Amino acid sequence: MAALTLAIGNKNYSSWSMRPWIALRASGIPFEEVFIPLYTDQADKDKILAFSRAGKVPVLVDGDITVWDSLAIIEYLAERFPEAKLWPEDRAARAHARAVCAEMHSGFQALRNECGMNLRRPVKPVALSADAEANIARVQELWLDCRARYGAGGPFLFGRFGAVDAMYAPVVHRFRTYAIPVAPEVKAYMDAMMVLPAFQEWTKDGIAETIVIDKFEDA
Amino acid sequence: MAALTLAIGNKNYSSWSMRPWIALRASGIPFEEVFIPLYTDQADKDKILAFSRAGKVPVLVDGDITVWDSLAIIEYLAERFPEAKLWPEDRAARAHARAVCAEMHSGFQALRNECGMNLRRPVKPVALSADAEANIARVQELWLDCRARYGAGGPFLFGRFGAVDAMYAPVVHRFRTYAIPVAPEVKAYMDAMMVLPAFQEWTKDGIAETIVIDKFEDA
Repeated sequence: MAALTLAIGNKNYSSWSMRPWIALRASGIPFEEVFIPLYTDQADKDKILAFSRAGKVPVLVDGDITVWDSLAIIEYLAERFPEAKLWPEDRAARAHARAVCAEMHSGFQALRNECGMNLRRPVKPVALSADAEANIARVQELWLDCRARYGAGGPFLFGRFGAVDAMYAPVVHRFRTYAIPVAPEVKAYMDAMMVLPAFQEWTKDGIAETIVIDKFEDA
Repeated sequence: MAALTLAIGNKNYSSWSMRPWIALRASGIPFEEVFIPLYTDQADKDKILAFSRAGKVPVLVDGDITVWDSLAIIEYLAERFPEAKLWPEDRAARAHARAVCAEMHSGFQALRNECGMNLRRPVKPVALSADAEANIARVQELWLDCRARYGAGGPFLFGRFGAVDAMYAPVVHRFRTYAIPVAPEVKAYMDAMMVLPAFQEWTKDGIAETIVIDKFEDA
């Protein structure tokens, strides 16, 4: 069986790459990693286009199959490796989990724009727009609701680590790096994520990267 | 068994509402429809918040289960009504279909901003940004690729009508209304969509609506 290949961007900056990567690593699924720097010129863009006409990372390649979006990759992995239990087994819990993931996938623009993932950034607050503050409140509401409804079996959003945690893993870094004040139960969830070996491995790799992309750095 | 309830916004404007609605209707799945006008004031916003804390339509309610995002609703329907075959049965085709849907779900911002869905709008072109032009080219590339790979069994993107067609149905209206020049095979796909009874029903209902929301109208 051919190994899976996951094309990703800079671990320091690429929050979308982190999502399927941590889903794979935390689930113990073997895969090969291909690094394509987030593009600052046409040559790098061409490298991504060779993987996917969508022109974006992450991209998963499994033999003849190419899947070019973070959420679609996670759905693919959930089907291909059911033993990883990326989605909750209960139908109602799974529907809830998918809605929480979809809200991340299409939303939270203000938070994403104003608190870009940058693992090396010194921890300090920034002035935030009302939209970003509303995003932060909504993420905390979602997390607390998942924990209250479905979190009994472990420290993650649905107990054991799964797709929803993978989709929100970069937000843990954002909350940490931008020194966002959070509720105690939210802090407990972030602490559980931050000791997950897969999360630590990604973080260590990202901090060790030397490429600096000015547009992703604070002024 | 309790009937499904789908909360939707204005059929004239709400492209996100159209997606699960047409998936349900074209599949012959019975459901009750609840209209909540896209909010222009807090009272309307409160009506949406009563359905979903995410504060957005569409929202599907099935007994105790609430699903508050278009793509998550479609995944839920695909599981709940497997006979509707919303996803292709072949694993590779399904992975492809999910990536195409995810690209719509999180992308094409320029097209969405510059060519908002407005069924009553007189057909005429507008000046478009380079980003919107690139979005239009990418949508056509995706459609032609789906048709070439998987379209043999019928006139839709994967042959029979499914989730991908539901996700792109509003784009057919955008291309039509903004008089976007398209390839002949793209036109053939749009024609197939425009004679689908579910598409025609939504369109007729939307055109009959009398609410005008200025921010969604051309200058």
